[in-house]
Amino acid sequence: MTSDRIQWHTAVADPHTGDDVVIRGYSLLELIDHVDFVSGIYLVLAGELPSPAQRRMLDALLMAAIDHGISPSSAVTRMITAAGVPIQAGVAGGLLTLGDIHGGAGEEFARFLTESVAGNQGREWSAVARDIVTAHRERKRRIPGYGHPQHPDGDPRAPRLVGIARRLGVAGDHVALALALEAAIEERSGRRIAMNIDGALSSIMLDIGLHWRHARVLCMISRTCGLCAHAVEEAVRERGWRGIPFDTVSYDGPAPRELPDAYRTPA
Amino acid sequence: MTSDRIQWHTAVADPHTGDDVVIRGYSLLELIDHVDFVSGIYLVLAGELPSPAQRRMLDALLMAAIDHGISPSSAVTRMITAAGVPIQAGVAGGLLTLGDIHGGAGEEFARFLTESVAGNQGREWSAVARDIVTAHRERKRRIPGYGHPQHPDGDPRAPRLVGIARRLGVAGDHVALALALEAAIEERSGRRIAMNIDGALSSIMLDIGLHWRHARVLCMISRTCGLCAHAVEEAVRERGWRGIPFDTVSYDGPAPRELPDAYRTPA
Amino acid sequence: MTSDRIQWHTAVADPHTGDDVVIRGYSLLELIDHVDFVSGIYLVLAGELPSPAQRRMLDALLMAAIDHGISPSSAVTRMITAAGVPIQAGVAGGLLTLGDIHGGAGEEFARFLTESVAGNQGREWSAVARDIVTAHRERKRRIPGYGHPQHPDGDPRAPRLVGIARRLGVAGDHVALALALEAAIEERSGRRIAMNIDGALSSIMLDIGLHWRHARVLCMISRTCGLCAHAVEEAVRERGWRGIPFDTVSYDGPAPRELPDAYRTPA
Amino acid sequence: MTSDRIQWHTAVADPHTGDDVVIRGYSLLELIDHVDFVSGIYLVLAGELPSPAQRRMLDALLMAAIDHGISPSSAVTRMITAAGVPIQAGVAGGLLTLGDIHGGAGEEFARFLTESVAGNQGREWSAVARDIVTAHRERKRRIPGYGHPQHPDGDPRAPRLVGIARRLGVAGDHVALALALEAAIEERSGRRIAMNIDGALSSIMLDIGLHWRHARVLCMISRTCGLCAHAVEEAVRERGWRGIPFDTVSYDGPAPRELPDAYRTPA
Repeated sequence: MTSDRIQWHTAVADPHTGDDVVIRGYSLLELIDHVDFVSGIYLVLAGELPSPAQRRMLDALLMAAIDHGISPSSAVTRMITAAGVPIQAGVAGGLLTLGDIHGGAGEEFARFLTESVAGNQGREWSAVARDIVTAHRERKRRIPGYGHPQHPDGDPRAPRLVGIARRLGVAGDHVALALALEAAIEERSGRRIAMNIDGALSSIMLDIGLHWRHARVLCMISRTCGLCAHAVEEAVRERGWRGIPFDTVSYDGPAPRELPDAYRTPA
Repeated sequence: MTSDRIQWHTAVADPHTGDDVVIRGYSLLELIDHVDFVSGIYLVLAGELPSPAQRRMLDALLMAAIDHGISPSSAVTRMITAAGVPIQAGVAGGLLTLGDIHGGAGEEFARFLTESVAGNQGREWSAVARDIVTAHRERKRRIPGYGHPQHPDGDPRAPRLVGIARRLGVAGDHVALALALEAAIEERSGRRIAMNIDGALSSIMLDIGLHWRHARVLCMISRTCGLCAHAVEEAVRERGWRGIPFDTVSYDGPAPRELPDAYRTPA
Repeated sequence: MTSDRIQWHTAVADPHTGDDVVIRGYSLLELIDHVDFVSGIYLVLAGELPSPAQRRMLDALLMAAIDHGISPSSAVTRMITAAGVPIQAGVAGGLLTLGDIHGGAGEEFARFLTESVAGNQGREWSAVARDIVTAHRERKRRIPGYGHPQHPDGDPRAPRLVGIARRLGVAGDHVALALALEAAIEERSGRRIAMNIDGALSSIMLDIGLHWRHARVLCMISRTCGLCAHAVEEAVRERGWRGIPFDTVSYDGPAPRELPDAYRTPA
Repeated sequence: MTSDRIQWHTAVADPHTGDDVVIRGYSLLELIDHVDFVSGIYLVLAGELPSPAQRRMLDALLMAAIDHGISPSSAVTRMITAAGVPIQAGVAGGLLTLGDIHGGAGEEFARFLTESVAGNQGREWSAVARDIVTAHRERKRRIPGYGHPQHPDGDPRAPRLVGIARRLGVAGDHVALALALEAAIEERSGRRIAMNIDGALSSIMLDIGLHWRHARVLCMISRTCGLCAHAVEEAVRERGWRGIPFDTVSYDGPAPRELPDAYRTPA
């Protein structure tokens, strides 16, 4: 092997080790025998095996986003699958929708929490939170991770996950700051705008040792399962090609018009 | 709700149930509290919670495909991610490669096993296997699920998974037929062409109650984790845009040539 | 350059030629100055520049599929775009739907026409067509390329394209066989099942020198334009995230049920 | 039709008009007969048919990006296609790479030019350009659209396109500001950093009446053609599944290590 041929560096896995594959230093055959899949997810993402509490927490985080019925992501998956396309392409299409708005919104919050916690070590989180709320208010910007249009009284998954994080003893600085922000928002605005699933998932995920870039990743891994279920259901149970019902569409472009004379030449 | 508005039917999940989501009849909040993620995967796919043995087996199957280092799927994910594209699009691109050849090959075998087991109830699997090998030989077709170019002595993951299936007591007719096929192939060809990971995963998966369409699905769910790890590694550790090294490309098209006169008009 | 480093062979283009790019042997700078884009499309696909009649015909074929309003492909593009995702990912998602059923159906017909024309040189196309119709009838298989659920009297784009092909003098054996099939189907079934857009596009495309694999490709190139228009319209004019209206969804899975006791362990 | 059923509004096309399709108010059948495809592209994007000069300019812009040999986008398309996946999925994967760095970079510049031209009407473009260069220098930010790592003396496609724009009389304020920026950068930095293809395409595109969001769109439409050529070439001429050569990969993760004792439980 001459080094100038190397195009790829990776610390994730090495499949060229005789009759085994190395995953982050461990034997895949041993992992298959002894380690559960959720620990394997933590291992490939974080580089190390989780503690029992980290593993149990990750279990709950992944369960929380596993499916949400017919949503933009599953509708996309089903429309592609219904068009006579292999299942992995239907699921890939659905995954594309996990962008800044739907599903992937926690990424921005996780990054912001990471920077805020790292940059304010030693201060009281309540004071940090008040500063953040004031700064956002001055720039007229919303803090992501709070409020949910469909759950005005609060997304019930968020306190459930925070409760598990506390019971497991994994809640740390990121959860603390996220809760302090919830309190500071209420203090400032006079009304409760509860932490949503993005806020809970992002803050807890950081406290079990994952990177802010893993916020969207956890949603993707979790929702891939639901999208697969939808793709199979579409293929097995539905009748194929999905048209868009005519009466759900309104054309509001130019009324029928004649081609300009300049184009009136024979083909 | 008038029924003529319905465009979507699903038995996977119902998110419109007040402050909870129903997943295959169960409360998502209770699932988060009490049920592990791998059981949740089985639930969304199969419609029921798994037995402990089914769950442990699914754990092992999902671990087996979690990553394979730099492969076509991860290379695609990394090239897309390096182009300044959100992470879910990089992973979606990688998933597209899990087609009939790479990663998704077990689907065909699982379908074939399903039909062969259903259509030969009451017969000895060794006799069924001999008939199948003979029929494939006559049509000069290869039976998928056996042999591996990189593992001439057999893919070591296959016997490991079959061993776990037996220890757990979940190996049934599909595994029995898959092993009978391995023996019949050796008997006929005079050399051992061992069951590969696709063969093991497909036969075991059917024996724990999943559908043949779930063969590719399990690879997708599992490998999504590895692809996410590669996408994050590319974003965090590499320097951005990946060019294709000049000296790995050979142009073998027409030599430089002049435009035909007919095109020599001014722009 | 040592040949063992070569991973890629291509006859399409060579960008490593000083201050120009070679496209199928021609200078890109000269192509920009002197050659229209549609001729460029023919060039990259077929390897040679088209005759004027081939170019004009390709113009018409590409126009015919440029957009079809809100369809599964544009709906997918718009849902992905609405989720806060870069435009190329929205369009890529829409392209995925051009599968065996919607948009890509002409590929199968083009392949079948290619083989039928090549294998029946010297025979009357009407006799060949009758044999094909009989063979399909015996195997109870439908011939693709004829009939359209939304156009019982015939897709009007098909005769329009065939008319242009005849006027331009490019209609050859593939169009002749496609029309003979239309007549033979009517003769056999007693009713007219007119050639549809897939049938017209596929047969004409072959007669202007393209490959059967280009049938789906022409739809993709053409519809990409429409999908881009939809993506931009969604981004500019709509309000962002698209939910699925609650009352268009029916959950028909298990009724709410209790977790089995085995799972009733604390988290 | 009751208005509360409407989920989709579009001004692009209306396919529900009897035996024709309306495209931006025009009859598709008439467009097929009388109008070339490039004018059709302008029509679906801009909403109106182009003038002859706008059409000819668009021809040149689309030709300029039609292919660049083996690049990240075509490599991705080829790896996906080689995995036994339908062609539209291979091309969709390649399109995903046209992100902020490769192919889609003109979008940011087009947006910036749009705002700068709109916000500085009545001023000399040379003075505006100097202000912009100073402002970017103070914020230590690079102005996109200038310089090319592979073309230190300037991307030759850029002056070619600007020359055509001038000959056709379509060069307007956006091209003028783009050229003024080139001069101001040279004045400030003391060396020539020539306008690149992104800069030329973006400024000219705006001057022929397109929107800044169409900058990336034009690259997508153009490159889709090249990607289709690569996908077909891969399918027709190559041998299938592409592995990643072992000696181009370096694993730099943890050395082989034992599982922690806590995991040493039987499966």
